[in-house]
Order: sequence, then structure tokens, then C-alpha cells
Amino acid sequence: IIVEAARRLVTPQSLSGRKILVSAGPTWEPFDPVRFITNPSSGKMGYALAAEASRRGAETHLVSGPSVLCPPSGVRFHGVVTAEEMNRVVSDLAPAMDAVIMAAAVSDFRPEKAAPQKTKKDSNDLTVRLVRTPDILDGLGSRKPAGQVLVGFAAETENLLENAAEKLVRKNLDIIVANDLTQPDSGFRCDTNQVKILFRDGSIEDLPCMTKQDVARRVLDRIESLFAARERS
Amino acid sequence: IIVEAARRLVTPQSLSGRKILVSAGPTWEPFDPVRFITNPSSGKMGYALAAEASRRGAETHLVSGPSVLCPPSGVRFHGVVTAEEMNRVVSDLAPAMDAVIMAAAVSDFRPEKAAPQKTKKDSNDLTVRLVRTPDILDGLGSRKPAGQVLVGFAAETENLLENAAEKLVRKNLDIIVANDLTQPDSGFRCDTNQVKILFRDGSIEDLPCMTKQDVARRVLDRIESLFAARERS
Repeated sequence: IIVEAARRLVTPQSLSGRKILVSAGPTWEPFDPVRFITNPSSGKMGYALAAEASRRGAETHLVSGPSVLCPPSGVRFHGVVTAEEMNRVVSDLAPAMDAVIMAAAVSDFRPEKAAPQKTKKDSNDLTVRLVRTPDILDGLGSRKPAGQVLVGFAAETENLLENAAEKLVRKNLDIIVANDLTQPDSGFRCDTNQVKILFRDGSIEDLPCMTKQDVARRVLDRIESLFAARERS
Repeated sequence: IIVEAARRLVTPQSLSGRKILVSAGPTWEPFDPVRFITNPSSGKMGYALAAEASRRGAETHLVSGPSVLCPPSGVRFHGVVTAEEMNRVVSDLAPAMDAVIMAAAVSDFRPEKAAPQKTKKDSNDLTVRLVRTPDILDGLGSRKPAGQVLVGFAAETENLLENAAEKLVRKNLDIIVANDLTQPDSGFRCDTNQVKILFRDGSIEDLPCMTKQDVARRVLDRIESLFAARERS
């Protein structure tokens, strides 16, 4: 805590007066009380973004799925479990935000029904019908207030840049951070990440492998640049 | 590490010369490279058991599904992901063990097929056909060497004692630790646990809520009692 206070003292308060929402972690989509569908997200990238935003003086809201990480000091923490819950909380908070960074690895699918009791093993083979969860980022893009900076993440195992560029436009984002899941030392559960940052003007920033803290700093630097550009125009 | 060394010095080496295998954590059953079925197990109960067994001088093997916990010092760590892998590693090690404690929350079901690439969201609704994973505990029970102590866990949301007692006999266990998942401060992800320990002679030890470390000590005390009784007979 003392280290964090000292670090905050030496960090320029470049986001003071700004409100930033960061989503993080996986979501859990249950099909009975003890079984669910999820993904390997640890929340590290999102928590690093929230910590850095808070350090720079932003009013920072962290909406997180289940994670063992401790919320960074100073952030307003909103814990959720399912994609449905994350959608509700994020959609409520988003309109008042200067920037929204969707770093969560939201489950795209959920079991259609959740059984009220633990499914017994003698149920033999069974079939889980999956339905789509709400597309949170899509909703944020279509209702984006003027001036808000909306940042998405794309984690792909193939056609990374193509898929990310398409998502950036289709979802009305300002920035998309693209993660190649097939790279070592990148993506889920790692402390480091190798990403490309894509912008609406078609430019691409190709970053070397660095810690998630450093990726967070780069992303927030880019958000600050967009704030500055919008104020000038 | 110094604290652990000191603790070990003051712990009677009551399991010296014994070999104990502990399984821990959840398993992940993937249906594509970034999505899987799992459960909320953190591995805390199993890691506590392995730490205590090692402290008491046993050659301790920890076979663990994905967990953020650090393996306790002194244990031989075997990391696995799926139920299939856990089955392979546990089955290989088990014949040489004096006691096997299956504290892992192994997924009972896995997706029949795993897609080689991340499923795109435009796949619309989809159906995952689930098939049974190998029943590791059942296999251990049916091939149990003379003198080995086999310990299972039962986590239930209904009919706890009944289900646990039935499992104890059917799987040829010596001890079963029964966990009521509907109790607060008990079961998945908690640091505490409220359990009942059931034995082959029909006796039941009903423990109050205690830390998982204390539950681990009780379970190992009972295993030591069984070792002693078998040596006397």
C-alpha cells in the first residue's frame, strides 16, 4: 500500500477529472450449481489497466468477473459472475464514462438452461444447448456518447489483424488491442503480453512483448492522445 | 520458506517413509482453444492436504489441475489440465502409494469434440454434446492394492450423507469427506470448510467449521490411525 501511494505520488495526474470503466476477467456461465463454461482469463490485463487509470487520477470503475486478483487500491469495484450481469452493470455505468475499456473475456455462449441441482453422473451423456450471451461491446458501440473513447480487445487464434480490424469498425470502437493467442508469453494468464494496437484511421502500433503493466500504460497513453485530439477539434 | 522450515521442524514426522498422492484443483475440459467446462475449485483443500502430508514427512505427490496456488514446498508436483490427463498421471502413480487422497474436483463430463480453432460468435446457437470422463476414483477403488488407504471427497447440493455413504461403499474407499455445498463458509474457494468424515465401519465424524489446514490435519490423523490399525492386525 505504501509502495502504491508512492507510485501514485510520482505519476502525473493526467487523467484527473476523467471517468474510466474497465471490465476484466472471465465470466462463468453455469449449467448447474457447480459446473460452468468459462475461459482461461485471469483478469491480469484488465486489473493492470484499472490500476494505471486510477494511478493517473481517473475515477476508475472495475467491473470484474470471478478472479483471484485483488482489486487495485482506489478503484470502485463491481464484482459480477455471468455475461448477463456484466452487461447490466457495464451498460448502467457506461453513459457517464469518458472511456470504456472492455478487457474482460466475456463468454459468448451460455447454457440455455441451468439445472437447480448438481447433475448426477448417472445422467450419462448429455447435451448442453448453448445460446448467445448479450454482445456487450456491440451495445456500447451502438449507444456510444459523443466524445467517449471505446476500447475493445480481440483475442484470436487465426487471422488476427483481419478479424481485429473488422471488429474495430463493426462495433464502432476507437481502439482495439489485438492479442495473438498462438504466441508464447501472450494472452491468457501470462504476466506479459505481445499486442498490436489498431486505430480508426487504419494505423497499427506493433508492440514487442512487454509486461501487462506496460501494455496498460501504452493503451492509456493512446486514450489520452484521443482525449487531447478531441478537445483540440 | 523459513516459516515453513520451522514448522516442519516442530511437526512430528509421523508419515516418514510413507508415500501419499493428493489430487487437487479443477480440471478444464475444452471445447475449443479458449473455452472449456470447469467448476469453481481453487485447489485450496488439496494443496492444504499435500502441504500437511509433506510436513509430516511423507513423500508427497500433488497432481493438480489448473490452479493459481503455489505448490507447497517439498511436494512433487504434477500439473495436468483435463480429467483424461489427471487419470493417466494418478493411475500411473497410485499403485506405489500408501494413501491416495482424491481431493480434485474432476469434471465428470467433457465436450465430445474440441474444435481446433476458436469458435466464431456468428456460429449462432450451438449444441455441445457432453460425454463422461473416466471415473478416476472408481478405477483406483477397483485396483486398490492391499493395505492402501483410499480417500474420496463428496461435494453435494442435496442428500449429502446418503450420497456420500453410498459412494464410500460403491467406490471401495476407506474414508470419504463430505462437503455440503449449500452451507456458507464451506466448499469451493473458501478458506474454511465444514465437513463430515465417513468411515467404512459406518461411523461419522461431524466436524465444526474450521480452516482447510485444520481439515487437512484431521484427515491425515485418520489416515495415520488406519495405517496403525492395519499394522496391528
